[in-house]
Amino acid sequence: MKKTLLVILVGLSMRAQQSAPAPVYTAAGELLLPKNYREWVYLSSGLGMTYGAAGNESPDPRFDNVFVNPSSYRAFLETGHWPDKSVFILEIRQSVSKGSINKGGRSQGDVVSVEAAVKDESRFPQKWAYFGFGHGEKAAPAPATSSCNACHHQNAAVENTFVQFYPVLLDVARQKGTLNAGYLSASKDH
Amino acid sequence: MKKTLLVILVGLSMRAQQSAPAPVYTAAGELLLPKNYREWVYLSSGLGMTYGAAGNESPDPRFDNVFVNPSSYRAFLETGHWPDKSVFILEIRQSVSKGSINKGGRSQGDVVSVEAAVKDESRFPQKWAYFGFGHGEKAAPAPATSSCNACHHQNAAVENTFVQFYPVLLDVARQKGTLNAGYLSASKDH
Repeated sequence: MKKTLLVILVGLSMRAQQSAPAPVYTAAGELLLPKNYREWVYLSSGLGMTYGAAGNESPDPRFDNVFVNPSSYRAFLETGHWPDKSVFILEIRQSVSKGSINKGGRSQGDVVSVEAAVKDESRFPQKWAYFGFGHGEKAAPAPATSSCNACHHQNAAVENTFVQFYPVLLDVARQKGTLNAGYLSASKDH
Repeated sequence: MKKTLLVILVGLSMRAQQSAPAPVYTAAGELLLPKNYREWVYLSSGLGMTYGAAGNESPDPRFDNVFVNPSSYRAFLETGHWPDKSVFILEIRQSVSKGSINKGGRSQGDVVSVEAAVKDESRFPQKWAYFGFGHGEKAAPAPATSSCNACHHQNAAVENTFVQFYPVLLDVARQKGTLNAGYLSASKDH
């Protein structure tokens, strides 16, 4: 009977963990880096992506991996929208060529820096905020006037997120009709 | 009380789902593609990786994303070994340049094909087997004499898996001392 109770409690605890609101802040309002983000749901990666003037391609391009908290991912699959308290982690890594048996192309190396985007409607007047952790474990939000806020607001495909780069979610957004009007008019995605 | 019981059952069901053996086969011995592998734990990605003669780099390189079932990932973090019934999915995607606001580098496009590696000691005499799904939902194992088996057996860093390309797990394997002797003597990783 004690064992049964233990199994039930473990089950309940996992359930609570998975549906708990994701962002955790310090008293000073800094976001804590979620320790287990590598076990969150992977959205996609790019290599050497640049958004400035063309011709800026680096000889040493970096990978970027994007993860989202699992309960928000599942909500998006159902609705095409991000629930409040969604957290996205952008992990930037060095790229490695000719590692081990790899003769061409690039694989991933060390972490260069980690960033986050958070949807938190009660905390941020602009609803979305952006955080640069570097190699640290906590980060203050970038000011609402930051280039992060401006670029995401202007160019993202769904709300403030670059769903145009996440193939699985782009299909969902098309089906649910949740692509931003600005994105639709700027792209050929209609 | 009924609601409490429901919550407990949901918790138990999630617990069972997460620790269930991962590979599922048809009566004919084909592996079924796990429908939710995109919610499994992401290991890493490469772009345009080639293992043959140098100089084969493609003008249209592909991304490969690797996922593993969550309970096996957690076991590896603790032991540096893969438990029996571990399943790895290799998802190969087209790469896209200059999509949306991206001016350089490459982001991920459509799925080209999906492959799997499975550790199943009671089913396969060589313990590991490899499967090519293409765009299908089931696949027979490649013969034990396939080039997949030979290359993984000869070159992988931990058991038959290319942990040398998964930075988080490579650190774990170093700490746990589970890198293959062949990999250690062929690389400078010691």
